[in-house]
This record gives sequence, C-alpha cells and structure tokens, in this order.
Amino acid sequence: MGLKTPAEYIASLNDGRVTYWDGERIDNITTHPKFRVPIAVAARDYEHTSPERAEVMTYKTETGERAHRVFQIPRNEDDLSKRVQMMHEMSIVGGVTGVMMALMSVKDAVAEVSPRYAANIERMYHYVRDNDLRAAEVITDPKGDRSRRAHEQDDPDLYVRIVKRTDEGIVVRGAKLHISAASLVHELVVMPTKGMRQDETDYAVSFSVPVNTPGVKIINRSFAPAELNEFDYPASAHHSMPEGFVIFDDVFVPWDRVFLAGEVQLASRLAQSLGLWERTGGLVAAVGSSKLFVGLAQLISEMQGKDRDAHVQGTIAELICYHEMLKMALDYALRHYEVTPSGMVHPNVLAVNASKYYYAANYHDSVKYLQDLCGGLVVTLPTESDLRNEESGRYIRKYLKTKSNVDVETRMRLYNLVRDMTADAYGGWHLVVALQAGGGLSAQRTMMNRIFDMAGAREMALAAAGVTRPVAQAAE
Amino acid sequence: MGLKTPAEYIASLNDGRVTYWDGERIDNITTHPKFRVPIAVAARDYEHTSPERAEVMTYKTETGERAHRVFQIPRNEDDLSKRVQMMHEMSIVGGVTGVMMALMSVKDAVAEVSPRYAANIERMYHYVRDNDLRAAEVITDPKGDRSRRAHEQDDPDLYVRIVKRTDEGIVVRGAKLHISAASLVHELVVMPTKGMRQDETDYAVSFSVPVNTPGVKIINRSFAPAELNEFDYPASAHHSMPEGFVIFDDVFVPWDRVFLAGEVQLASRLAQSLGLWERTGGLVAAVGSSKLFVGLAQLISEMQGKDRDAHVQGTIAELICYHEMLKMALDYALRHYEVTPSGMVHPNVLAVNASKYYYAANYHDSVKYLQDLCGGLVVTLPTESDLRNEESGRYIRKYLKTKSNVDVETRMRLYNLVRDMTADAYGGWHLVVALQAGGGLSAQRTMMNRIFDMAGAREMALAAAGVTRPVAQAAE
Amino acid sequence: MGLKTPAEYIASLNDGRVTYWDGERIDNITTHPKFRVPIAVAARDYEHTSPERAEVMTYKTETGERAHRVFQIPRNEDDLSKRVQMMHEMSIVGGVTGVMMALMSVKDAVAEVSPRYAANIERMYHYVRDNDLRAAEVITDPKGDRSRRAHEQDDPDLYVRIVKRTDEGIVVRGAKLHISAASLVHELVVMPTKGMRQDETDYAVSFSVPVNTPGVKIINRSFAPAELNEFDYPASAHHSMPEGFVIFDDVFVPWDRVFLAGEVQLASRLAQSLGLWERTGGLVAAVGSSKLFVGLAQLISEMQGKDRDAHVQGTIAELICYHEMLKMALDYALRHYEVTPSGMVHPNVLAVNASKYYYAANYHDSVKYLQDLCGGLVVTLPTESDLRNEESGRYIRKYLKTKSNVDVETRMRLYNLVRDMTADAYGGWHLVVALQAGGGLSAQRTMMNRIFDMAGAREMALAAAGVTRPVAQAAE
Amino acid sequence: MGLKTPAEYIASLNDGRVTYWDGERIDNITTHPKFRVPIAVAARDYEHTSPERAEVMTYKTETGERAHRVFQIPRNEDDLSKRVQMMHEMSIVGGVTGVMMALMSVKDAVAEVSPRYAANIERMYHYVRDNDLRAAEVITDPKGDRSRRAHEQDDPDLYVRIVKRTDEGIVVRGAKLHISAASLVHELVVMPTKGMRQDETDYAVSFSVPVNTPGVKIINRSFAPAELNEFDYPASAHHSMPEGFVIFDDVFVPWDRVFLAGEVQLASRLAQSLGLWERTGGLVAAVGSSKLFVGLAQLISEMQGKDRDAHVQGTIAELICYHEMLKMALDYALRHYEVTPSGMVHPNVLAVNASKYYYAANYHDSVKYLQDLCGGLVVTLPTESDLRNEESGRYIRKYLKTKSNVDVETRMRLYNLVRDMTADAYGGWHLVVALQAGGGLSAQRTMMNRIFDMAGAREMALAAAGVTRPVAQAAE
Repeated sequence: MGLKTPAEYIASLNDGRVTYWDGERIDNITTHPKFRVPIAVAARDYEHTSPERAEVMTYKTETGERAHRVFQIPRNEDDLSKRVQMMHEMSIVGGVTGVMMALMSVKDAVAEVSPRYAANIERMYHYVRDNDLRAAEVITDPKGDRSRRAHEQDDPDLYVRIVKRTDEGIVVRGAKLHISAASLVHELVVMPTKGMRQDETDYAVSFSVPVNTPGVKIINRSFAPAELNEFDYPASAHHSMPEGFVIFDDVFVPWDRVFLAGEVQLASRLAQSLGLWERTGGLVAAVGSSKLFVGLAQLISEMQGKDRDAHVQGTIAELICYHEMLKMALDYALRHYEVTPSGMVHPNVLAVNASKYYYAANYHDSVKYLQDLCGGLVVTLPTESDLRNEESGRYIRKYLKTKSNVDVETRMRLYNLVRDMTADAYGGWHLVVALQAGGGLSAQRTMMNRIFDMAGAREMALAAAGVTRPVAQAAE
Repeated sequence: MGLKTPAEYIASLNDGRVTYWDGERIDNITTHPKFRVPIAVAARDYEHTSPERAEVMTYKTETGERAHRVFQIPRNEDDLSKRVQMMHEMSIVGGVTGVMMALMSVKDAVAEVSPRYAANIERMYHYVRDNDLRAAEVITDPKGDRSRRAHEQDDPDLYVRIVKRTDEGIVVRGAKLHISAASLVHELVVMPTKGMRQDETDYAVSFSVPVNTPGVKIINRSFAPAELNEFDYPASAHHSMPEGFVIFDDVFVPWDRVFLAGEVQLASRLAQSLGLWERTGGLVAAVGSSKLFVGLAQLISEMQGKDRDAHVQGTIAELICYHEMLKMALDYALRHYEVTPSGMVHPNVLAVNASKYYYAANYHDSVKYLQDLCGGLVVTLPTESDLRNEESGRYIRKYLKTKSNVDVETRMRLYNLVRDMTADAYGGWHLVVALQAGGGLSAQRTMMNRIFDMAGAREMALAAAGVTRPVAQAAE
Repeated sequence: MGLKTPAEYIASLNDGRVTYWDGERIDNITTHPKFRVPIAVAARDYEHTSPERAEVMTYKTETGERAHRVFQIPRNEDDLSKRVQMMHEMSIVGGVTGVMMALMSVKDAVAEVSPRYAANIERMYHYVRDNDLRAAEVITDPKGDRSRRAHEQDDPDLYVRIVKRTDEGIVVRGAKLHISAASLVHELVVMPTKGMRQDETDYAVSFSVPVNTPGVKIINRSFAPAELNEFDYPASAHHSMPEGFVIFDDVFVPWDRVFLAGEVQLASRLAQSLGLWERTGGLVAAVGSSKLFVGLAQLISEMQGKDRDAHVQGTIAELICYHEMLKMALDYALRHYEVTPSGMVHPNVLAVNASKYYYAANYHDSVKYLQDLCGGLVVTLPTESDLRNEESGRYIRKYLKTKSNVDVETRMRLYNLVRDMTADAYGGWHLVVALQAGGGLSAQRTMMNRIFDMAGAREMALAAAGVTRPVAQAAE
Repeated sequence: MGLKTPAEYIASLNDGRVTYWDGERIDNITTHPKFRVPIAVAARDYEHTSPERAEVMTYKTETGERAHRVFQIPRNEDDLSKRVQMMHEMSIVGGVTGVMMALMSVKDAVAEVSPRYAANIERMYHYVRDNDLRAAEVITDPKGDRSRRAHEQDDPDLYVRIVKRTDEGIVVRGAKLHISAASLVHELVVMPTKGMRQDETDYAVSFSVPVNTPGVKIINRSFAPAELNEFDYPASAHHSMPEGFVIFDDVFVPWDRVFLAGEVQLASRLAQSLGLWERTGGLVAAVGSSKLFVGLAQLISEMQGKDRDAHVQGTIAELICYHEMLKMALDYALRHYEVTPSGMVHPNVLAVNASKYYYAANYHDSVKYLQDLCGGLVVTLPTESDLRNEESGRYIRKYLKTKSNVDVETRMRLYNLVRDMTADAYGGWHLVVALQAGGGLSAQRTMMNRIFDMAGAREMALAAAGVTRPVAQAAE
C-alpha cells in the first residue's frame, strides 16, 4: 500500500486486461509499441521524488500517510488551488482519476437512499487512494436512437443495463464510448449517462470494476501514430492517450462494488457529478493552452520580423483577450467555490459552465487567429528526418534562417508545435474535445439556463422598467 | 464647506457659465427645460440622507469629516469594492468626477518633475472634495488631420495649447470634444490628449478651471428629447446627460491651477491616467446592463409564452455567458488590484483592458440577441399617451394581453426599456459609447499588447516546443 | 382612373380614416404636422413626370395604359430587375404595396379551392392598380400566449377572426401589429399570420378593406420626431414612416373582398406568400445601405487623415466583403428566378432566404465596424442650429476643420448620416427591422432547413464517404 | 504529342528528378510507397476514356486536336463554367497546372516590355499543352526577415535571384516554399513572390524549368500517412498530395525559358496573376465542401435520431447559409467575368476576392458547427481493422447500431469522413489552406480595399448626406 513508483504502475498494467487496437488483440500492453508513449505519459504522474514535485503531486492524508494529490478532497480555497496547480502538471490518466471526486461528492445524496451504496463509495475511494490506482470516468452510452429512451431502443443493450441480480451481485451488459485512457487505468468507474425514469430501473446503474474483470473489453483509438518524436510532435509526444470503446459483456459486479442498482431517482445526480470536474479540467487546460497560443504567435511573428505589423499585433491582442478572460474566469471559479453538505468544496458551478462555454464557443476562432499569423509553413515544413539528412538539411538550415539571432531548429520546433496542436491529428482531437468534453454547445447552454440567478435578473429588469409591484404578480 | 444638498448643487450651477444647446445660448441652466432631466439626474448623487445610502455614497475623510465617496482614495480591496458599489448608483456626473482619482494617481510622477504642480494637484483635490464639487474629464482634442502631429496642423489651435505665459499664469486656446456632462460640473480638469514630443511644448498642458471662467464656452448635445417620461423612456429618463463641445477662447489659468505647462515628458502619463478609471466605469456599467439584458429577455419571453422554446433558451444562454464573463472579470480586476508608489490602489490594468475590450467587441452582438428575442413590438409599441387615451387605450390593453397573470402596463414598460436601451437614441448612444469610451477597438487592442505578460508566454511556448536554451538566445 | 399625381394622392388620404398618434385622435392626417414628412415621403412615389423616372416607376399594362410599376407582374428576368431598380427608389409605402404581388402569386392555389375567392383577388388587383392606390401588408396578429394556438387563448380575439357570417359578407374582429405605413395607404390587405388547423376555421381569414371602413382604427408609432431637418437627419428626413397597430372592431367585409373565410388548408399558403417579397425588399435595401456604409467609413476616415491606417483599411474591407456578398446574392436570386404555374416569376426563394439571413445575422456587426471607425463625434456633434448660431457656429467651423480640402458642413452631414442610420432612433428601428422583417433569426433558419436541396447534400456526403448503396437504404 | 494516358504520365515521372521525403532521397518516385496514393490521385486526371468524362476533361484546340481542358483559354462565360465543372473533378496536380492560365493572362503586358519573353510564354504554353504535361505554381520565397526587402537580407539568397547571366541563359539560386505537388509535375513555373524595386533587379525573375533540371531539389511534406485506406480516410485517400520545399541550387535556365530577368516593373504583375486562379480554385472547392458539410451534419443527425432537435436544425441552417452564400458568389464571379485585352476571360476579381475572404474568415466556424453536431465519436470511433477483427467487430456492429434502417458501416464511414476532413491531419491542412491559399486574411482584405468601387460608394454617401457639390471638392 502507499504511493506507487512509475515502474510499479507500469508492471501493474500487465494484468490480463483485454484490449484491442487497430484490429489486433494485445495481451500485454506494457511491451507493445503502440502503448509506449501513452504509458510513458501516464507513468510520469507517478514521478514525485523531487521535493518540489512531491509538494505539488502528493499530500498527507488523515492517517498521516502521503497519497497522490488527485485523491485529496478539497476543504477550502487553498486545497482547490493546489489541485489546479497539480492539474496543470498531470496527464489525462491522472485527470480522469478525478472521477473519485465526483463519486465522493454524491456520497451524501446516495446515503439518503442507501447507506450501503454510500459505504461502498467510501470504501472504493480508500481502496483506490491507498493503492495509488488510477480510475476512468465511464459514462457515455452508445444511446442508439436519441429520440427514444433507454428502454425503448430496438436493442435493449444500447445503454448499459443490469441483466441479472443475484445474492452476490449484479451482471451488467452494454458499452460505453469515449472513455479516455480506459486501457491505462486500474478501475472503471461506471456512471449512468443521464437521468432515468421509473420504468428504466435496469438502466440506473453505477459501479466500479477492475479493468481485468472477465467480460470487460476495450477497443482503443488514438489520434496519434505510434512513433512520435519530440521534434516533429512536441505536444502529442507528451499527451498521446488512446480513447476506449469499453464493452461490458455480461460482467459480474459484486454488491460491495455497486453504487446504484435501480434507484432511478439518483441516476441524474450521479450523471451530473462528473460534468463539473470534467469542465473544470477543460478550463484549466484552456488557460494554459490559450497563453501558449499567444507565445507562439508572438515568437513566430518576431522570428519573421512581422511583430510590428498592425495586423499581427491586432490578432495577437485577440489571443491575449481570449486568454485573459479564461484566466480571470478560472480565478473566479476557485475563489467563489461552493461547499457540499459534508464540507467538500468545489469550483463555482455557474462560473465553470459559463467559462467552459466561452472557451468552447471561441476555441476554433482562436485557432484561426494563430494559424492566420503563422502562414503556410505550419503544414509544409519538412520533418526532422529531412533536417538530419545532411544534404536536404543543409538547404533547410539555409533557407529557413530569418535573422542572425534566430535559430532554425527553434523556429522549426515552434512551427511543429503549432501544427501538432492545431493542424494535425492531435489538433483535430483538440477541436472536438474543446467542444464536446463535458457536453456539446447546446448542453452547456442548457446548464447556464438552469443555474443562472434568473430571479435576480428578472427583479433587476422590472425595477429598471419602473415596475413597482411584486415580481410574482408582474409575470408568472 | 462639506457635503452639499441637492438644492445647493442645483443653485451652484447658476454661476454665469456660457452654454449653448440647439442654437440657443442659455444663461441659467437651472431653469431651462432642456436641462430639467439632466440636472435631476445629477442632483440625485447628492442625496444620501438615509443611513444605507450614506454608507454607500459618503465616507469619513482623514480629518474626520464626511465627504462624497467619489473622492475616497482607495487604499485596499475593500475600498475598491465600496467604490464599485457606489459607481453602480452614480450618475455620469459623479462618474466623470473620477477624474480626481486619475489626477491623484499621477501626483507622485508629477512631483518628480515639478513639486509645485504636484502641490497644485493636491490642493485642487482637497478643494473639490471639501466643497463637494463635480469635475469633468476634459481630454479629447479635435485633432484635425490625424496623420499630422499637433504642431503640424494647418490651424495650430486644433489641439489645446498655451498661447501666452505670464507671471500670473498661462493663457490657453483650443477645444475639447466629447466632454460628458461638461455643463453640469463645477471644474473642468484638462489633460493632454496624448503624448507630446520635444517640439510640442505648448501642447503639453494640464490644468483645472471653473466652468464659469471667462472664455470657456460649452455647446451641448444630447441623444435625448427634452420631455422624457418614465413610461416611454424608462432608462434615458434616468440617465439623460448632454455631451459638451468645450471651447477655451484664450482662457487665463493662474499658476496655482496648472498641472503641466510644457514638460512634454509627462504628457503621455497624464493622458493615460484617465483611461483606466474610464474603462473601469464602463466595465461596472456593463456588468449591470448585461444582467439587465438577461432579465429583459427572460421576462418578455415568459410573457409571450416562449420561454420554453429551444431557440429562446439558447439565445438567453448567450446573454448569460456574456454577463458572467464580465462579472467574473470585474471581480478579478478588483481582487488583483495594483498599488501606486504612494499607496493608492487601482483595479488591475490588464484585467480592465481585456474585459473592456471583450465588452466592446461583443456588445453589438448582445443587442442583437436581445432584439431577436423581443420581436418587432420593440419599435412599434404605442406610447403611453395612446395607452392613456381612453379609446385607443382600451384596444391596447385588450390586444397586448397575453396570459392572465401578465399585466399589460408592465409588459409595455419592459418593451420600452428594451427600445430605450437598444433601439432608440439612447440605445444608439450606448452602442457608440460601448465602443469608444476609453478608446476604440484598435486602441484597446494596443493596450493589451503593451501590458500582457509576453515574457511568460514566450517562455511557455519555448518550453512546450522543447527548446532548452535561454529565451534570449532563441529569438530577439 | 389611371396614375395619380402626388397632390391627388395626398387629397385621397383625407377620407375619414380613424388614426391615433401619441394619444391624439387625428381626423385629417393631410394637415397634421406629425404626418408632414411621412406624407411627403409617400407622395414622392407618385412623382414620375421626367422620362427617366417614368421609365423606372411606371409600365404599360396589357390594356395599353400606364400604371405604377409596383403593380407589374414580372414575367421574366428583365421584369424582375426593373422591379428591383424601382424598389431602390421607392418609399416604404410603395414597398408594402408589394402585397399585391403576394396576393396574385397565390391566386392559382386559391382558385383550386374557391374560384370565387380567386376572382376576388383578380378584381382587387385591377382595382388597386387602375386607381393607383397603395395597400398595406396586414399580417401579424398579437398572438397572446405563443404556447397556445389561436383558438386556445384566454381572449378569442388575439388572432383576427370571423365573428359573424351573413349573406352579404363577414364581420371580423381582432388586431394586427407592425403594419408599416398603415395610415398612409388606401387598402388594408389582411392575411392569416400562420397556418391554421381544422378547429381554427374562424381564424383562416383573408380580405381587403379600405382604411376608412367603419371599425378600422390605427394607432401610429414612429421612431422619428415630427421635425426632421435634412442636415441633422439626412436619412430619416427621407424615410420617416409610422408603423400601425391596426384594430378591426367588428368590421364588415362584403363577400367580394374576401379571399379566405374558413378554408384552413390555404392559411399557411397565404401567410407565406408575403414573406418572399418582404425579404426581397429587405435584401434590396441591404445591398444599398451596405455600400453606403463603406462610403461613409471611407470618407470619414479620409477627412480625418486616417485612411492609410491598417486598422481602418482592415475594417473597411470587412464592410466591403459584407456588401459584396449581399450584392452577389441578390444578383443570383434574380437570375435564378422561379416561375409559378401561371407564369409569374419571383426571386429564387432559397437565395433570398439565405441572403436575408446572412444580412440579418451580420447587420449589427456591420454597424459596429462603421461606428468603430467614426469615433465619438457620431453622438457628440453639435446640431445644425448650433452651426447656424453665429457665435457657436464660428467655433464649430474652426475646430471641426481637419484639412484644407475638407468642408466642415460636409463633414458634419456625414457624421449626422452615420448617427441617423446607426445611432439614433432611426438606426435603432433599423437594427430591429433588419432582424425581424420577414421573421426573426430562428424563423429564417427554419425556412432554410425546409427548402435547401438536402437530398443532393445527403447524396454527396454518402458518395464522398464511399457508400455505394442507394441513399434510401443507407439512412431513413 | 497529344493526350497522355495515366500510365504514360506515371512513366514520365521517373526522369531522374531529385526528391527527399522524411529524410530519404528517393530516386524513382513511381515505385516508392509514399508516392503510391499521390501518384494515383494525379494519374486520375489523365483518365477520360468515357465520353462523359472526355467532355468534362478535354477540349478541341484551335488546331483541331484534343487537349486537356486545363489548358483551354476561356473566351466566354460557357468556357468558364466548363472550366469550373472540370475543377470540381480535378486533383491538386491538375489544379496547379492552372499556372499556365496565369502566365497567358500576363502575356500582353509582358509583350509591351519584351516581345521575346512574351513569345517564350506562348511557346511554353503550347509545349506544356501539346505534351499534356503538368506544371506547378512556384511563387513563395522563404523571405527571411519580413521587415527587410529582398536585397537587404543577411543572406542574399532568401529570395530566388539571378546569380549569373550568360549568352545562353541565366543561373538562378534560392528556394520556394509551399509548392503543392512539386514532385508530381513536369514543369516548375517560377514567379516573383511580390513586386520588386529598382535596386532589386536580380530578384525580378520568372522562368520555367523541368523538374529534373540539374540543381533542382524537392523536399516533400505531407499531412498524410503513406497507408491510407478508403474506409478510415475517405477524403485523404483521394486527395493526399505532398507539398514541396523546392531548391534551386545554381540552376541554369536557357533564355527561351525565361519570362522575366530584371524588368522590375513587371514583377508585381506576374506575382498577382497567380492569385486570381488560386483563389478561384479555393472558392470552387469551398462550394463543394460546404455542401458536403451540410449533408454530413444531416445524415449523422438523422442516424442518431436528432434531426428534429431545434439546436440541430439551427446549426444545420448555419451550414446551409454558408454554402448558399459561397455558391451564389461563385455564380456571380463567373457570370460577371472580366476580359483581358487579348480576349481571355477570367472570373470577376472583386467577386472572387470577397468570397474567398468570406470563405476563409468563416471556415473555422463551419468546422465548429459540424463538429458540434457530430459529437465525440468523430475522434473515438474504432478503425476499420477493429471492425474487421471478428471479436471486436461484433461489438462495434452491435453498439453503433442506432435504428433498424441505419447501416453501421455507412455510419462509420460518415464519421470517418468528418474526422478526416476536419479533425485529423488532412483536416488540419484544410484549416491552414483555407486561410493561407491565395494569401492570409490581411492580404485578402488589402485586395478588397484596392479593387472595390470606392468612387461609387463615396458618391453614394455624399448624395445620401445631402452634399450636392462635386465629390472632388468635398474631400480629397
């Protein structure tokens, strides 16, 4: 028990889990070339031997032991901002382990319906934390025909469901989509994808199982080619992580790992618990990447001698504004945190939603600004191999030189970073994820409608219009 | 000395000042119908007899006396947020008196060049505060041909300049444009419109003169008709305020009212001191009006029975997002305040600039959203007179009824507020002011370029690109 | 019979019609100051004594007589483009008389249900044309609670309905909103506001009555003050036109003026017939005003010596692009015209809808661009009266001079035009009308969904995806 | 002489040309796996054995022989629209061969300066056409420090230049960037990258050389992996084409292949000739891809049962509007064609520029709309290999089923097409090319400023402002 080392983490992944990738069934992911970069990325979250990094990545638990900070339940603003600091450093594997926060945040509500489930949540939290495991957010069902509900589909399995209940546990069948890093974690924490109605009890199900449980199968998909060198792929070489299509082919789950099994009134609550932390993660990443965009736009323009052009400066100012708005919004969300009944604090829900929406609705435009400044070289630059080839490399060094103080390799790396982040497979993944993580634009707008202080706005409007009678009478 | 009453304020305006309006020279503005609403609006800032309002609108000075809070020099975050609370309550006349903050914020810099000028600033501050006067921000010169500098114009008077210097003082000539509320204040605080070069010493001039000083003339212009009833004009009836075209026709200014007279190195500093508070004022107002827009959109949609439509909810969510982003940015600007050498605090400059730009660049769109939801009635609704006319009023009440719990007069007031704020003369003024106050879009972008943490962004980009050599070597 | 002169038109308006404006019942609009400008504007459409103007404004009918071209039923592309040329010259009163085109375009469909109604349409068309009358588009009902249908409202009169049927005709009750120029026309052509269902027969009603029919009352509303001088209001002085709130207080309509009375299957057809011409009118106006915006931006920038600034040129290019896209779309709509069964041609429906939507969705932005370039003077410029006042005028002429070749009065007129068109009451009316005329943004999007060549797009997508089976099998 | 077959084309590429790709020097591209798809794509342009395709892809020359239509000099509107029809069918290799049109369009202007160069152009045109060769547009120089001109760079070779002149010809040195399909053509038609001044005579150079000329070297770069299967890459499998970094290492060009050698006054003319056809090509492609986006959005929404959602329909309407505006603009550009002195017709320059700008400025948004509707599956869908693997394939078929009439493979292909076109390497290339081909946003705005009918707009503004004096006097 206790903190794992990177090597221990890697070894733990060779546990018989069933994964597929590009048509191949892979029996041991720790030795397979396609998993080389993703495992290296995930293992880095286990590196915290330096005191500085230990401070960021670990904390002392209530028992006095050190655990990974991803498991720290925030109790105040300081905890929150340490968590955000950690999030800036952490891989997607660490990110999705945030599902434990979501689970703990609904424990009180679950306890009101079933103390047993609540105890299961508590136990699972300690088990994952104390063994320094990683867990995936397993939520999105295939959903089939969206105009019909779960139990109305042609195939009843299009939402994960309970097909059998025994004294020992439940048997579940179905699939879950878009499960980031599914093959790289230890536990699959399954949540219902949305609220369920009275006649959908078999679909109101939540539980956690180890990835190597019989019947669990994962089909992997990645934006990234297996061979990622850091010169040509400065970003994805450090972020490559497959998404999982996770199948539950009649998987048995013992009762002590079940968090919900038919109590439809809780389904929507569990479904929503994930969103806040997922959107917060998106926002934290956006604050970083939007600043990076400014730096890239500036450096590339400087190196071309274009940084004094009015058009260039104006476009950079648009990127600055985008970053500053995001940065300020994140700051607000953390400072105006909210507290659950049991004293767990979390970022301000409306703040996170509004700023995640602002981020998503304007991200494609920010890519446009950056690409507009960087020119065609973003997609036509020769690769590192051509640079290292003596003959072609000589020409590249000669002709990509701009000023005496500009180093050609540095210039190439910057263009590669722009391409990797905005105009290659990883960039495309980013465009989609910026929009879809935590729900598409329409879902995000609906959240704002729900939680905005509409009573205050209505009162303000009536007062400004000179209406003196009580709000309630004036309308509605 | 001490706080003035509304009546004392009004009486003080009959001091022989020379004002024109629509071709008429007005000798006593306190009895002229065109000034009725503006004076009423300005006088309200002097009302603070209730304890609640006294708390918001006044403070205790270092001498123990109470003064208007507009004069309180903020020393900490709490002072700043009290100031913002006051700004929400204050008219434009109170708003522009914020020029005293700008003046005091440059006092230290002025002292380094001229202790005498700095003493003049200090004395003027106490004089205005202790007599509860109001002062206008007098900055924008006509500028003639923008491609030439001040001293290169065909007419040397197109920027305010010193035409004579004597032992007693200076004589100035020129004009200043867009001087909000010029006719409604006591002091005209004149600043240079921008930085000046070595050969422009006569144009580096700053001073304050009473409005009734010989040679000062003001031509007023307002968006508002003189007769503003609160039913048809719920907003402008409370905000109507003329803009002044202020002429200095060889005005004598004694030395003890001069803050700059030729020291070109300070011109730009004084010019910029105003911008921050002007933009802060714009941001404070924007936080309010953007929430008002949400409330109006919601109420009008509810009254029409359209509040469940997906299109309506989506559009309201856009308005919510706009408001929330502005609200969070203002909060950030106040919390991350900055401190001058002498301990005066002010909102974060980059925060204010970025959010003012966001506000300005998106304001027309927010108007579009609101107008899209409210429909044609915004511009075709009959007026209060028609409602009060028994015969036509009967029809209006019958046909504008929508649901049993909707009061037709309330509905009309809400439409009138939308029209007044977005689709009538006041609304047009708002569109222009949202863009232009504190500088147009281009000027605001330039400010962001200047003060953004570009070193940080460049370093971040180089690190992400895998460049390990020192920044300085990599580029620049 | 035959073409009326302006004087005859004006005289014809004194016919006992019942109108209200600002609480006053006006018995003879031809002598009332509030109607001075609107009547002058409308009368100009009757001026065509010069050969050039006669060519644009009139045509030879099938009987060899000349009639106003607004009545010409287009039969080919040339007719269409002459109509557009005329539309550029015509007031709103002439514009709304385009309702006769809408009526004639549904005559064939009406004939299939009722030859009598079709004959009524034909007769009414000849009557209006041969007497050179003007007619209003009377369509929008108050609608009450939008979540309920016409016959479900608390008050059954919230949609115009038939309250009695006799051998001589029908009696109608209700009101219609946003009726442009209602008090300035001769005939009110009433259409159902939307499709009606089987149980709404009383609401499926269409007819035309003279404005002075007993029971018809009009409450006027205008953006414009009565006194509009051409210097301060260069645009609205030529376009001021009240909107009417039209009441039908148990109005008797003889059968030969009825076009629909219960045949619900035709209601939607009649309702939609108006939209096309209304949107075409909006598009024609937009092509003109968007070019005007470019010219204004350019001239004002030149006069300030800012026309070489990169920011200015970039912003003007945005305005150019907006204009060019609209111009090209109108050209397409006319060239790719569509033909009704009886040989009447009309602009391409999808083209008009898409470009009207493009216009509406981007109009507020075009206003932003123009206002950004023009600066604060748009709303702070003194009025003509101040210019004519000798003393203040002297200062205005001195200080608004920019370059030797710039005439101050011309400069002022240009600023006034920008203010009048974008930042004053007329400008506000424009913002709303750009969005709402022909339906708000959501309604316009729905039109595009309906009429787009979706089959072609689906087929193209399947082919590009490499799907070879028939479309029908692949999906749906 | 005469039309080549695909096989002849492929054989002709094995001519000793020097190309590099990913660090490897490739001696025979016709047998190298990386060139497999690009050569297949290019060879398809030579397929026109069916009568329908022969009609589209070929034409009868003035000598009566058939040639590829890419060489047909358009003389009227019909020629233009046939050319556009062909462009829809043609690969990038065919597209860039449009450089011959650019060359011929400046022949008259060149003749005025040098009849010899003009004759060279004419001869080269016939040579390329009669041998059915392909030619690349070789224009963009590396440019070094953009704030300095060609002859001021640290390295004089950063713009292609003449290093030696002999009786037989010239020797040139330098490099050209972003040369689409450089390795796949026969001729490199080199143009100056922009206008040149008097002291830059060595840089005013234009010529054409065969790709296998000694000293010519090409470094290739492609967005696409070598193995592109049509299931996973439905778009790029048909469009993959490397970009070339072309080096001229002291290349000898005989005089009869020279089109410019020092006549600086012509440099800008040649530089600009390319832009029109490049932008036209972009516009033609945009008309197609924007319709494809609509079809994809619709089909994917239908298959999910979401096509009735208001949000989905509204978003599809945005995509429709974008497509329709582009379609109408292209139609206008072709109908309002312009004619050169020698009778060659070309699309309307302003029309092409405005619509290319509209396309570029809004393309990222159109991608956002499509991605918003398609959800996360765009980037998480398993690949064809996983589908073909019996075990994983069974799960994929089960869980991606939505409705009885939806075929899972079809659904997968559609998602793959969305990913390939917008969220993978080809999609990223598209984002950059949409912005940069024919010049970035700023360059495109500048073009509009230059060629817009500004005189007309200024006159219109003055008339509308009521200014009656001649334009010339009013301003400027």
